[in-house]
Amino acid sequence: MLSREENELLTRVGPGTPMGNVLRRYWLPAVLAEDLPAPDCPPVRVKLLGEELVAFRDTNGRVGLLDEYCPHRLTSLFLGRNEECGLRCVYHGWKFDVDGNCVDMPNEPADSRFKEKIHITTYPTEEYGGIIWAYLGPPAKKPELPGLEWLRAPQTHRYVSKTLEFANFVQAIEGGIDTAHSSFLHNNDLSRKGLRQIDTAPRLEVEDTPYGFRYAGIRDLKDEGQYVRVYHFVAPFHQLRSLRVQGADPTDKRDVPVAKGHMWVPMDDHTTMVFNWMYATEEDRPLSPEQIARDEEAAGRGPAGETAIRHRVRENDWGIDREMQRTKNYTGIHGVNNQDLAVQEAMGPIVPRWREHLGSTDKAIIAMRRIMLQAARDIEQDIDPPGADPDTYWDVRPTDVVLPQGVDWHEGARELLVARR
Amino acid sequence: MLSREENELLTRVGPGTPMGNVLRRYWLPAVLAEDLPAPDCPPVRVKLLGEELVAFRDTNGRVGLLDEYCPHRLTSLFLGRNEECGLRCVYHGWKFDVDGNCVDMPNEPADSRFKEKIHITTYPTEEYGGIIWAYLGPPAKKPELPGLEWLRAPQTHRYVSKTLEFANFVQAIEGGIDTAHSSFLHNNDLSRKGLRQIDTAPRLEVEDTPYGFRYAGIRDLKDEGQYVRVYHFVAPFHQLRSLRVQGADPTDKRDVPVAKGHMWVPMDDHTTMVFNWMYATEEDRPLSPEQIARDEEAAGRGPAGETAIRHRVRENDWGIDREMQRTKNYTGIHGVNNQDLAVQEAMGPIVPRWREHLGSTDKAIIAMRRIMLQAARDIEQDIDPPGADPDTYWDVRPTDVVLPQGVDWHEGARELLVARR
Amino acid sequence: MLSREENELLTRVGPGTPMGNVLRRYWLPAVLAEDLPAPDCPPVRVKLLGEELVAFRDTNGRVGLLDEYCPHRLTSLFLGRNEECGLRCVYHGWKFDVDGNCVDMPNEPADSRFKEKIHITTYPTEEYGGIIWAYLGPPAKKPELPGLEWLRAPQTHRYVSKTLEFANFVQAIEGGIDTAHSSFLHNNDLSRKGLRQIDTAPRLEVEDTPYGFRYAGIRDLKDEGQYVRVYHFVAPFHQLRSLRVQGADPTDKRDVPVAKGHMWVPMDDHTTMVFNWMYATEEDRPLSPEQIARDEEAAGRGPAGETAIRHRVRENDWGIDREMQRTKNYTGIHGVNNQDLAVQEAMGPIVPRWREHLGSTDKAIIAMRRIMLQAARDIEQDIDPPGADPDTYWDVRPTDVVLPQGVDWHEGARELLVARR
Repeated sequence: MLSREENELLTRVGPGTPMGNVLRRYWLPAVLAEDLPAPDCPPVRVKLLGEELVAFRDTNGRVGLLDEYCPHRLTSLFLGRNEECGLRCVYHGWKFDVDGNCVDMPNEPADSRFKEKIHITTYPTEEYGGIIWAYLGPPAKKPELPGLEWLRAPQTHRYVSKTLEFANFVQAIEGGIDTAHSSFLHNNDLSRKGLRQIDTAPRLEVEDTPYGFRYAGIRDLKDEGQYVRVYHFVAPFHQLRSLRVQGADPTDKRDVPVAKGHMWVPMDDHTTMVFNWMYATEEDRPLSPEQIARDEEAAGRGPAGETAIRHRVRENDWGIDREMQRTKNYTGIHGVNNQDLAVQEAMGPIVPRWREHLGSTDKAIIAMRRIMLQAARDIEQDIDPPGADPDTYWDVRPTDVVLPQGVDWHEGARELLVARR
Repeated sequence: MLSREENELLTRVGPGTPMGNVLRRYWLPAVLAEDLPAPDCPPVRVKLLGEELVAFRDTNGRVGLLDEYCPHRLTSLFLGRNEECGLRCVYHGWKFDVDGNCVDMPNEPADSRFKEKIHITTYPTEEYGGIIWAYLGPPAKKPELPGLEWLRAPQTHRYVSKTLEFANFVQAIEGGIDTAHSSFLHNNDLSRKGLRQIDTAPRLEVEDTPYGFRYAGIRDLKDEGQYVRVYHFVAPFHQLRSLRVQGADPTDKRDVPVAKGHMWVPMDDHTTMVFNWMYATEEDRPLSPEQIARDEEAAGRGPAGETAIRHRVRENDWGIDREMQRTKNYTGIHGVNNQDLAVQEAMGPIVPRWREHLGSTDKAIIAMRRIMLQAARDIEQDIDPPGADPDTYWDVRPTDVVLPQGVDWHEGARELLVARR
Repeated sequence: MLSREENELLTRVGPGTPMGNVLRRYWLPAVLAEDLPAPDCPPVRVKLLGEELVAFRDTNGRVGLLDEYCPHRLTSLFLGRNEECGLRCVYHGWKFDVDGNCVDMPNEPADSRFKEKIHITTYPTEEYGGIIWAYLGPPAKKPELPGLEWLRAPQTHRYVSKTLEFANFVQAIEGGIDTAHSSFLHNNDLSRKGLRQIDTAPRLEVEDTPYGFRYAGIRDLKDEGQYVRVYHFVAPFHQLRSLRVQGADPTDKRDVPVAKGHMWVPMDDHTTMVFNWMYATEEDRPLSPEQIARDEEAAGRGPAGETAIRHRVRENDWGIDREMQRTKNYTGIHGVNNQDLAVQEAMGPIVPRWREHLGSTDKAIIAMRRIMLQAARDIEQDIDPPGADPDTYWDVRPTDVVLPQGVDWHEGARELLVARR
């Protein structure tokens, strides 16, 4: 439970807000690299932390991220022409390069020097791990690119898609770092008892780290041992989890072992762009297109390239099928991530946390809030937030494993928790 | 004409408002009984007086009306599983019975007593007259169920449907207790002169009663006598009227005599659920499906089960057909109740009553406002509002009748105005 | 660049605002005459300066423009019956003539004199030049009808259509009086260089006039001379321009010479009704239906009668086709006026002018703002605004012409700038 004031502090991300200032100290995923597939391709709109921007890839393949509105008369550069190393406003032809210089101003006399005075707001970008990253913060504070193992993986071993969510990013994160709900919300076969149904009240052990925290959700399988899932929360919005145990999903037999996760990037206070990723953790076993397609289908997403388009939304009750709910799965909603979106969006755009009643499985949620609220208070004192330095999480990997009873997971899963260098 | 302050007082119904407090002293229709057709059927959303709720029928057939949001993490219980005498949240499996007890909390350890501390807000419900009724007020003030004759009638003799209206409930009531407009708005055959077209300026006689008021609208038919329609307004939102006179609608020859009415239940300040009912007043003559279908069609509603769905709305000008308006009926709008919805919604969500100019046929409207405003002021002084005690209106019945000139309607219609016990 | 305060002053038009008071001193186009095609035709909704109105043509052909809401109970007279020299409310039959008198009140007793006390707000209208004009200001200040040449032209020589724009009227005007953008936004054939592409930085000469201003946009064609386009801005929202030079549009060879323009009429702060007109300037050469159809098609509008309906809007990115933008025209958007609407609406409903950076081709925009802001300040001092007196612009005509180098356009275009009397 948070106070109303804490809830505001935690969730508001616009320019000048404390949490907005925290988030402006990290590299943020802006779009997929494939959203800008080639030099001089069409520009795309980007919204980050309440700021309206436009991204384009220039003739040389460099990516620019500009204020959406031309400084001349303020129409949208989304309508612009991407040509010859610059984005041109269609209203009067003003042209900007990826650094924000006005490189052509054809409606002024040839000898005019007006264009030298004109710069458009730009933010630094980097292409990395299949994603265009943006940094919206103070230049002097710009960190290294995030060093998560999946981002360092070769393209053959990773996959990333994105989904638009109509809710604040914090309640999306809270779903992501909540291992308990998978026993219920994601119980997709009422006819059998998976590992997560044998024990539906996992014991959580949360450990603060320099990058945020990690925690183990431990399920007691009685004679079968203990089922341990270790998650990482890397500030400000990264979730890392694993789903490799055979018993958890027998269809995985066909598949290479993967780790998975999400990044929940605030577009504004009420809208989040979710980046969904997975990577194949074994060096000699890349992802196959079939496995990717199967996984996206299980998540409830469409084929590649359409992943940001939603068909199951509040207005159609997320496609709930009451007969399916009665006989097949817990929710009557198709797709693991659609189930997440349904419960998160059903809370309203910003959930009133002063009304909630947290229990023992909410320890990770409480930790995340504590760390992020502290970061919001610290940033006002010029104290750097956690998780900006990739060295602090370079080595981490999530896992899940069934261990014998009595074995401490720190020992039993030690090797599984180490990333490839 | 009301002041702006009176208009606010009359129309605002949310928690803590005076009129909201008045309405919380009555049983309110929440849904049709058929909306929860069987034990363990899907839950439905309910909105009453600005409160978001969910209703379900449990395994034993009991109906629960709960806060829509699970007290744990506040997602919607509309998504919930209705199973084994309780509604379960799909997020973490918390389960609530119809009394609001948390009867299962499967994400907590087996020995946890946390669930004993958790209760969800519930409101008492009763199933009665084909309707699920809810009481949202102070328990000590809970009245008897409404004793209107039609509600006491056997199922064979009554019919009720519902319609969503996009306007404040008061302007809906004002349409309902306004006998004058039927001469115009509901003139559905321009080629002939019905009883209500012979005299379009009825003389209104309004009489306060313990339950609200009754009034006679008297039309002078000259040599043919006088056409008297007696309406009742039972606070806070019941209208009772009759339409039995042959001359008023010759097609009624095929039909059994009925009384009719509406209940206008505020969902919030801008939205009303209208319950439309009729009942056959003669004990040995039940309603036939044909008569019900004919009546719903004349009202402009679809077949049973789809009555809350609107096809003629502001966005399509309520389906106005100007050629029909020129040649067939007064409005060019199909269906008596669609005509009502059109003029009421066209006023905007809350009509600015300080701009109006009331005349002699608006006496009933003025009486309703006076009574309801007084109730809103009284409730702040802990004075009970009118119409909560069913004894006060147990015996009443509306009527319409053609009487000879010179006969006082109190005498001439005496027997017609008495309900069956 | 304007301050935030100046931006408010310039753009807000509701009752009581300074700019609203300015606009209430002019005749405003309300609807096309063809929107009320015949006596007793259906009434139409009209919104002007934030006021909700309804227009109808009575049995004698006179046009009434009334408050949309009946003074009795305030439902919409748009639903009304237009019959026998009056518009009747469908709720209770109150009937109003074009002068706002209540001429029938059939729900009151025959001897009632209540109707004599009831008047509905009306505004004077005039039918002129294919348009129904309205005057919403103080009666004593009512000016003559606008005396623009195209309005005085016979019906055979003019054409006018209308388009709904989702943006404030000022940014629409700013597009209209900006000659420079036509070199870019309206470059509809990337394969050739038109007169406006040879010199994309026209030199603007702005001259204040009693009715607003006129300006010449002069493009240097080197050896070919100078291309001069003379526009007029007649306060408060008239633009007059020409497009007769063969080189500018070779397809014009088929066409008679025309002048063109728009009127941008504020419906409210965020919505504008654009009236688009053209007229054939040569007395013996009327417009043909083919030329009108061609022109409307080039503008991006549909056939006559559907011109207010938009298919290319913000929600579908104004139909932008990136391949068309790459290979065919500058914007990838079909239709000259759709291109205008796209850049104007993309600015948001009211553009934040304190962020802009104006250059040398924005001189006309600066002049318009100066004049209109002065008018807004003057009206508070009871000083009449410019452009209300038709004598001040009776003689003006826009033109465009290629003149030899060195010839002053005042001399070279003198005859072309004079309207027919």
